[in-house]
Amino acid sequence: MELLPIGIIHSPFSKPADIHPLRSRYTKGTVEIFDKFVPGLADIEGFSHLYLIWWSHLASGFRLLTTPIMQPDPKRGMFATRIPARPNPICLTVVRLLKRDNNFLHVKGIDVVKGTPLLDIKPYTKRDIKSRIKIGWLDEVERVNR
Amino acid sequence: MELLPIGIIHSPFSKPADIHPLRSRYTKGTVEIFDKFVPGLADIEGFSHLYLIWWSHLASGFRLLTTPIMQPDPKRGMFATRIPARPNPICLTVVRLLKRDNNFLHVKGIDVVKGTPLLDIKPYTKRDIKSRIKIGWLDEVERVNR
Repeated sequence: MELLPIGIIHSPFSKPADIHPLRSRYTKGTVEIFDKFVPGLADIEGFSHLYLIWWSHLASGFRLLTTPIMQPDPKRGMFATRIPARPNPICLTVVRLLKRDNNFLHVKGIDVVKGTPLLDIKPYTKRDIKSRIKIGWLDEVERVNR
Repeated sequence: MELLPIGIIHSPFSKPADIHPLRSRYTKGTVEIFDKFVPGLADIEGFSHLYLIWWSHLASGFRLLTTPIMQPDPKRGMFATRIPARPNPICLTVVRLLKRDNNFLHVKGIDVVKGTPLLDIKPYTKRDIKSRIKIGWLDEVERVNR
């Protein structure tokens, strides 16, 4: 199981500490697709939202019990967090597609540092919209920050 | 960029052709996590929905213009589809978590063949819920099937 980057994500963030977990939903960035993959972008303009699948190249190693950014204590099971340091450091961001400009996608909602390798783009569909969700420990965090 | 499986997905589907794109949202399956990763499942029961990130081990190669299952004609840009045959055959399913039983997660909404290697589990959060989405060519398909 080996991966190859299909592009690069450009963002205003130089390092992970620059990324605010809430405010980044308004952050604009650009997704650059390498030339050989550009024909695969056909029809993408019809979608308002896309999944970006990216490789967290700055993550090294992982802890099965981990400290989420938004709540320093207690530790949480890593699979109950979105922390980039994982057994397979594959991360996921839903972005809004603002505009396509040949091999560049201008998007909103970037929580990724500049220079991050892109692995895949997928359309966000109705099936991805879930209602009446429960969000476990994140609910506590939201209540505290309210 | 190398990957290791963290578990296996069990489902009623023996081959990709058995998976119906619409009815599979009601299909139940089981996600088995390998022993060494089980501590990372702590706190997962608090979440109603999870992302399963899986490796499409049956896919080989890809086409940048491809024929979606739900619409045989015309071809579509691969990144505007969820077809498993991709430059990086990493796939994504949002499932409902029904119950955790130690290293087994019982889930609903499986569109994966049995024996598929699991790469990651992530909590589905409020940020993943998007409203007023546009779904491009899929909208045409939905109108035809209505």
